[in-house]
Amino acid sequence: MKEIVKSPIQGRVGKPRQFGITMVMDKGLGLAETRDFLALGSEYVDFVKLAFGTAAVYPPAILQEKIALIKDSGNDVYPGGTFLEIAIIQKKVPEFLERAGCVGFTAIEVSDGTIELSAERRRTIIGMAAKAGFKVLSEVGKKDPRQKTSGRAMANAVLNDLDAGSKLVIVEGRESGRGVGIYDKEGHIEQERFEELLSCSGVQNAIIWEAPLKDQQSALIGLFGPNVNMGNIPPHEVIALESMRLGLRNDTLKSVYQRD
Amino acid sequence: MKEIVKSPIQGRVGKPRQFGITMVMDKGLGLAETRDFLALGSEYVDFVKLAFGTAAVYPPAILQEKIALIKDSGNDVYPGGTFLEIAIIQKKVPEFLERAGCVGFTAIEVSDGTIELSAERRRTIIGMAAKAGFKVLSEVGKKDPRQKTSGRAMANAVLNDLDAGSKLVIVEGRESGRGVGIYDKEGHIEQERFEELLSCSGVQNAIIWEAPLKDQQSALIGLFGPNVNMGNIPPHEVIALESMRLGLRNDTLKSVYQRD
Amino acid sequence: MKEIVKSPIQGRVGKPRQFGITMVMDKGLGLAETRDFLALGSEYVDFVKLAFGTAAVYPPAILQEKIALIKDSGNDVYPGGTFLEIAIIQKKVPEFLERAGCVGFTAIEVSDGTIELSAERRRTIIGMAAKAGFKVLSEVGKKDPRQKTSGRAMANAVLNDLDAGSKLVIVEGRESGRGVGIYDKEGHIEQERFEELLSCSGVQNAIIWEAPLKDQQSALIGLFGPNVNMGNIPPHEVIALESMRLGLRNDTLKSVYQRD
Repeated sequence: MKEIVKSPIQGRVGKPRQFGITMVMDKGLGLAETRDFLALGSEYVDFVKLAFGTAAVYPPAILQEKIALIKDSGNDVYPGGTFLEIAIIQKKVPEFLERAGCVGFTAIEVSDGTIELSAERRRTIIGMAAKAGFKVLSEVGKKDPRQKTSGRAMANAVLNDLDAGSKLVIVEGRESGRGVGIYDKEGHIEQERFEELLSCSGVQNAIIWEAPLKDQQSALIGLFGPNVNMGNIPPHEVIALESMRLGLRNDTLKSVYQRD
Repeated sequence: MKEIVKSPIQGRVGKPRQFGITMVMDKGLGLAETRDFLALGSEYVDFVKLAFGTAAVYPPAILQEKIALIKDSGNDVYPGGTFLEIAIIQKKVPEFLERAGCVGFTAIEVSDGTIELSAERRRTIIGMAAKAGFKVLSEVGKKDPRQKTSGRAMANAVLNDLDAGSKLVIVEGRESGRGVGIYDKEGHIEQERFEELLSCSGVQNAIIWEAPLKDQQSALIGLFGPNVNMGNIPPHEVIALESMRLGLRNDTLKSVYQRD
Repeated sequence: MKEIVKSPIQGRVGKPRQFGITMVMDKGLGLAETRDFLALGSEYVDFVKLAFGTAAVYPPAILQEKIALIKDSGNDVYPGGTFLEIAIIQKKVPEFLERAGCVGFTAIEVSDGTIELSAERRRTIIGMAAKAGFKVLSEVGKKDPRQKTSGRAMANAVLNDLDAGSKLVIVEGRESGRGVGIYDKEGHIEQERFEELLSCSGVQNAIIWEAPLKDQQSALIGLFGPNVNMGNIPPHEVIALESMRLGLRNDTLKSVYQRD
């Protein structure tokens, strides 16, 4: 059908891409579902996160096969940040990284959504993971709605992380998309915090916005265009999200059409 | 089990059926999921919509196989209305219809949920699609909550569409079921608008109510019985919806039982 | 990965288990999905409920194969309580139980979520199902938010059911988790009702709490530890729930970490 109808939003970049990233949050797809999902949406996905500590819950043979399937389809795969946070508490970071490499993970998320982590220790861990050959995604923002940080503080954390070796920095949105990072309790973008983060960091393409809700996705595409980096996308929403990036859904089409 | 227990609500019609339609909104099932879904629920489904412009996002070979699977199971399949709206903007309607036929689609949705479309042009396009051999589903109602139309205006649009060649007319409900068509912001039926639409159109069996939310489904079954036409049903809710049509779930059983 | 990182919450019991039960609410998984789900999560599940009257809607051959798959993976499987309630209305209880056994169900839920059922009749039916060889799960609580019962009344119902032959007693939570059983309209636990139920029954391990919402699951784990019995878990949330039981997710990890 795309031979006939031109995408209303042009300029979407293909893989491998440095920006325009889609990161999927996988809470426990089976192997058949994983195959199905990759056959359909692989070219629209860049990173698959096995959420929080789920990787420790999978039967080991299934975990290994799943990771291999994701890698073989040209995607990076990594364990949720909470898992490494537990390794940090238990003083097992080197062992964790080594094991993650053996199991096949290609990326590592460094976060302090739940634990406390000094800037120095954070820097060290990012460096260790990068040196071990992982693509490092770090994450800024606390999971607890009572611990919101200012836009400026988030911007500084972003810049420090990139300097320490992070390839991309995720802004926390959780699975719910409410009351964390740049979102208020209803899941709307908090304009002031958001703009401060943007203007103080100045590295838009290095940020992945966790955006689990449809209105967040369309707002971000409206602000940044089709190649905004987005994360925590449910696996079953990948085709719908790509449609939105291309203006093939009301939520983003309407702005194009009203400009015409 | 149904040999033993009689359905509390009787009179559900089987396939092929002229009313009692279930239209499924598919936002991107993979091939294995599609097969699984059809094996389980095919006899309870009539139309599968590949939502909005998702058909342009599928890898072409997967799209073709998926459409073939749906057709072979005795269901109609069509691209979301937003996709044709884009073709209308781009002045590619004949090419769109031809291509849709080649890919295997058996039905076409004609809508103006996002774009403006004159009554005359709408009539022409419905006629073109019908003449090209498609079952035509047209849709009334805007996607933007600020553009709600009166029940009477919707009724007139329904009658005009049927006269122009539509087989069934869908009343917009979106994926959310809130603030559009006959629903208020909480997803409840707006009684006045709803009754005006019904009394002014007088063609209840030709209307498909988009009803993505469970309470909307049970309310419609309560009003019209087990054979009300409903649309935008998520694929994973087809068995649950059929249970509700038959009174095999609390939401519709309670009314039967209280009458007993 | 679990070789390296110790579960933050220890003491989770394995199968077969008398407590620490996870009951899954299946609204209509296809066969491929069922296989996928069982391969991945079978060791974390104990009971699969084919919700309400869905068992009457499945094509018979698929129903039989599905039940066999679930049993063969070491899980109990039973039809939703609403289904038996209909058989009770239709005076077909013995026939229902016989047919349920033939189809392969291993457990039966006895409830009065929708119908009225005298204490004596309830007792008789629980006894009949137990005598027929089923594991009996009974359920207390009405599905209609206007019919909430006191904690004490629920506690008495729990004790009566256990005495009559129930193996476990479910406290109603519906699919929504709101306005029923121990939950208020927002899905939070109503403290007074809850504590009364607990203190008056004194049989914590015999109760399965329907807890479809994530915050309910983490609250219950916080109160009772990793082996609290929970039900109405969506199939796709089984791995996430097990992660939460083990402290491998922020929602339960934070309490462990703050204690450290």
